Amino acid sequence: MLSKDFHNVQLEPVAEDKGIRWVIGRPEGAPNFAMRVIEFQPGAVFETHQHPYEHEIMVIEGQGVAHGAEGEVEMRPGIALYIPPNEPHGYRNTGDGLLRFICVIPHQE
Amino acid sequence: MLSKDFHNVQLEPVAEDKGIRWVIGRPEGAPNFAMRVIEFQPGAVFETHQHPYEHEIMVIEGQGVAHGAEGEVEMRPGIALYIPPNEPHGYRNTGDGLLRFICVIPHQE
Repeated sequence: MLSKDFHNVQLEPVAEDKGIRWVIGRPEGAPNFAMRVIEFQPGAVFETHQHPYEHEIMVIEGQGVAHGAEGEVEMRPGIALYIPPNEPHGYRNTGDGLLRFICVIPHQE
Repeated sequence: MLSKDFHNVQLEPVAEDKGIRWVIGRPEGAPNFAMRVIEFQPGAVFETHQHPYEHEIMVIEGQGVAHGAEGEVEMRPGIALYIPPNEPHGYRNTGDGLLRFICVIPHQE
């Protein structure tokens, strides 16, 4: 068993106002999927994008909005999102503090 | 995109003092892995067990202890655990409130 506090995992910048912590993945020996923590500073936006793999998300901190093919949904602690493969999607932080969510993806070759 | 508040997902009892919410899985169309929320009442214990699939865990509420092949580790919000396939492991709630953690597993045939 491997244990770590995600706060101690390096935040890799995606842009000046958002980043990603790879908490559990191939380096930890995980055979199938990776657990990341995604962080958006207040006002940060991730524009619409898509990719051939799914997301399984749980919001753990902050307030935001996610958008998918069928419109917008609220992001707040306790909200889980499933984003199917190839669905265009994006996020924005609409709160005064950090927006943090767990995002699990299958390993990519 | 599918959105839900995990609090609204039915808690399936595992015993009187612990249960599991299947938040995202096959019924939601997820092709590879399932995101569950596991809940332990104060004092609840899940004795040592093992299975051929891994766990990727994030604690979101409460205080507890997990044990694996090499001893005990603390569970508190922000702690991530990786439990490899076939490693004997268990959990107990050592706090005064609910212990809640996200636990992601690959789909089982």
